[in-house]
Amino acid sequence: MAGKRIIAVGGSDAGISAALRARELDPESEVTVVVADAYPNFSICGIPYYVSGEVEHWSNLAHRTLADLKATGMEVRTETLATGIDVAGRRLAVRGADGRTEELPYDALIVGTGAVSARPPIEGLSGPDALGPADGVHLLHSMGDTFEVMQSIAERRPTSAVVIGAGYIGLEMAEALTTRGIQVTQIEALPEVLPTVDSELGALVHTELEAHGVEVVTGTQVSAISRALSGEVLHVRATGPDGKTFTRGTDLVLVVVGVRPDTALAASAGAELGVKGAIEVDEYMRTSLPGVYAAGDCAVTHHRLLGKTWLPLGTTAHKQGRIAGENALGGRRWFAGSLGTQVVKVFDLVAARTGLRDHEAAAADRDWVPATTASRPDDHKAYYPGASPIAIRVTGDTGSGLLLGAQLVGRRGAEISKRVDTYATALFHGMTVDAVGDLDLSYTPPLGSPWDAVQMATHAWENAHLLHAHRAGLHRS
Amino acid sequence: MAGKRIIAVGGSDAGISAALRARELDPESEVTVVVADAYPNFSICGIPYYVSGEVEHWSNLAHRTLADLKATGMEVRTETLATGIDVAGRRLAVRGADGRTEELPYDALIVGTGAVSARPPIEGLSGPDALGPADGVHLLHSMGDTFEVMQSIAERRPTSAVVIGAGYIGLEMAEALTTRGIQVTQIEALPEVLPTVDSELGALVHTELEAHGVEVVTGTQVSAISRALSGEVLHVRATGPDGKTFTRGTDLVLVVVGVRPDTALAASAGAELGVKGAIEVDEYMRTSLPGVYAAGDCAVTHHRLLGKTWLPLGTTAHKQGRIAGENALGGRRWFAGSLGTQVVKVFDLVAARTGLRDHEAAAADRDWVPATTASRPDDHKAYYPGASPIAIRVTGDTGSGLLLGAQLVGRRGAEISKRVDTYATALFHGMTVDAVGDLDLSYTPPLGSPWDAVQMATHAWENAHLLHAHRAGLHRS
Repeated sequence: MAGKRIIAVGGSDAGISAALRARELDPESEVTVVVADAYPNFSICGIPYYVSGEVEHWSNLAHRTLADLKATGMEVRTETLATGIDVAGRRLAVRGADGRTEELPYDALIVGTGAVSARPPIEGLSGPDALGPADGVHLLHSMGDTFEVMQSIAERRPTSAVVIGAGYIGLEMAEALTTRGIQVTQIEALPEVLPTVDSELGALVHTELEAHGVEVVTGTQVSAISRALSGEVLHVRATGPDGKTFTRGTDLVLVVVGVRPDTALAASAGAELGVKGAIEVDEYMRTSLPGVYAAGDCAVTHHRLLGKTWLPLGTTAHKQGRIAGENALGGRRWFAGSLGTQVVKVFDLVAARTGLRDHEAAAADRDWVPATTASRPDDHKAYYPGASPIAIRVTGDTGSGLLLGAQLVGRRGAEISKRVDTYATALFHGMTVDAVGDLDLSYTPPLGSPWDAVQMATHAWENAHLLHAHRAGLHRS
Repeated sequence: MAGKRIIAVGGSDAGISAALRARELDPESEVTVVVADAYPNFSICGIPYYVSGEVEHWSNLAHRTLADLKATGMEVRTETLATGIDVAGRRLAVRGADGRTEELPYDALIVGTGAVSARPPIEGLSGPDALGPADGVHLLHSMGDTFEVMQSIAERRPTSAVVIGAGYIGLEMAEALTTRGIQVTQIEALPEVLPTVDSELGALVHTELEAHGVEVVTGTQVSAISRALSGEVLHVRATGPDGKTFTRGTDLVLVVVGVRPDTALAASAGAELGVKGAIEVDEYMRTSLPGVYAAGDCAVTHHRLLGKTWLPLGTTAHKQGRIAGENALGGRRWFAGSLGTQVVKVFDLVAARTGLRDHEAAAADRDWVPATTASRPDDHKAYYPGASPIAIRVTGDTGSGLLLGAQLVGRRGAEISKRVDTYATALFHGMTVDAVGDLDLSYTPPLGSPWDAVQMATHAWENAHLLHAHRAGLHRS
């Protein structure tokens, strides 16, 4: 019997992961990846490090080269746009760089069209006279966007830049441009930077940015970007928390305020859409269309604590893609769910989170009575040189004692990103806060403590919320 | 009602943890800690860093000062030896530094007498003419031992030292003495250093030692230590793997070949002994004697994969002590079990393990058919500066797919110690190797990969052992 014909649309994490898994599991399968641009399997998360100059050549950002991909036996069609799905006929319409159209038959199709940059309602960003890359005004998500930014930097030789947005990419880009010697002003609409963590932790990142010379402007909504009256310089107008106008002249503007799912292909074929307009999928990554799977940023995310949500993350895209690739071959693997585990390095600080924060847990449709406790355990024994405190916020349900989430900020080198993984693994298994103390974690004085920082923080939560009940229970027994 | 009278014997991790927990849970409790020496709550694991000079003053090695301990409301009797237990009368006989004896009444007693250095059958180490600290020959386990080593270093100004044993402490002491500018010869009887990990990984530590100037001699059994004929120099005689004699003249000898449980107090009161002669305890840390608990290095260890064993580790002692302290008050907390998670830093390398190795799993009384797969994933994306490979060995049961253990060696900074914690948490929950790939771990290019190294290693195990079966299953479905 001939192998199944699998087509993945999208050359980023989800599409490539699906194609790799299909080829790995079934050497007979005929796998084609349809890639809109010329950059299959690029690490979008690595873009800031190319912009900073830490990655010398853009081609290094490829997880695998085109040759690597082809060596697995898959076909990769770059600069090819998927224009429509004939669901009943199981054919994908595509248009190549030369304009030629074609219909590719498939047994199973995986849609991994990803996300596109959100374009905020800022004057000067839309309409017929919208400013764009030629003016030094950039949205940033794809490799194409990146080349335009690099061209602006090469041609305009900016000494200053405004970064609009202080989420993960915004922070990384602020660092990247600072590393290049550009004076950065970072503008965030919300009251604190890195709004995906509690403001007490965001404030630590804020301080780190300022310590490295970034001008940080929070609670400030950008309303307009325009060409300045003199020369090629740009002008950014915004409204601060006090209602006062904030303006800044600058050579370069980056708009990085988030992304939205790119669902055009699937939606036009009739696929049901779900949370935040992302493609609805079940745990097997099946869309509402027969034979059509979706994975990655274009699809909804099953969250272990929240149910269905939308959380575009590379880690999730890899997992979902791999599952879609397996199920496209007839497998029955299901996506175990996200916990929203994330980490970002900002200069010499690392911030991470997993699970839910207080208000997120309170808003969930569950019987939780969440509470969060802050602590600052050292990363390793204080007597050994170089110890530094980690700001940890543990969230748990005061009713059941269930662990709901954790957030950590500490110095680079304090193993923040792997400590959040311990919490993520504990959350995966629905542990109570209390039981985290039972985990047999490693210890040596230069790298930890007999109770790791992870456990000191859960002990602090217990002492704040359960010690009284625990004492009472002891006296009853 | 008056509080319960709790006595903990032993001022190290177990005894102090028990006392702290009792005071935390019941402010009415009368808690006394009986400490044989003058150093309660010292970090024995920190000794190498005091010897190296990285910790300036020995008093910094205290987890808490005597004043800290007393502030919790506990009484600490230092330089007081517990000489006997009257189990029926619930009284502990003690002798103070002044020779005065006393009987202390208790409601519950916690024995945390720890371990003592093993004294290997080496000529010159025992008998009436045994060499000792005055000769520059040292066993090393306690703070008292440490002061003697430091005195030898100060008085003898050694330019060379022989470290007998290349386990955790032996390796740390080799590094410590090297840091002091002393030429170290490290002699290990087994074929490779750090025999608690597979020799493929021990070999990496071996190379690291040599790169820092340590002479490493493996497969070599020391048979005698003697005073050299000329001057104060020592002479070490050993037998190499080829049966040939190996000799080394040296200024200082450290014998660090492990420890054995110190059970004299409990055993003389009639406590049942178990594995390796350690005090038998149940999961509630109860000995066979009514009202008497034991915790830490003196007691057997419940292991989640092996059942009862003996594994003296500070992390375990802290947990067991805390549980004993709670149960001594009438609590019903049980020790969830060890996984033998351990980590050691040797110069710029970190080695860690959790769970079982191949031969340990094979020897266990279970239906496992263990297999181990080696891989070398990078600690973070290769395009970001400073990436380094981590040598990972994953052990799983090829029958059930169960994860059984993991060993990792990598550069310091590669977050080895927290990566082993992810495996330890996965093992705690009895995950399959396959399911580790479902964990939602953190990712940012400077600190990880979309599939973390932890998961790349489990994927490698799956591909080596389950891919064939997986493929066949797919074709049947």
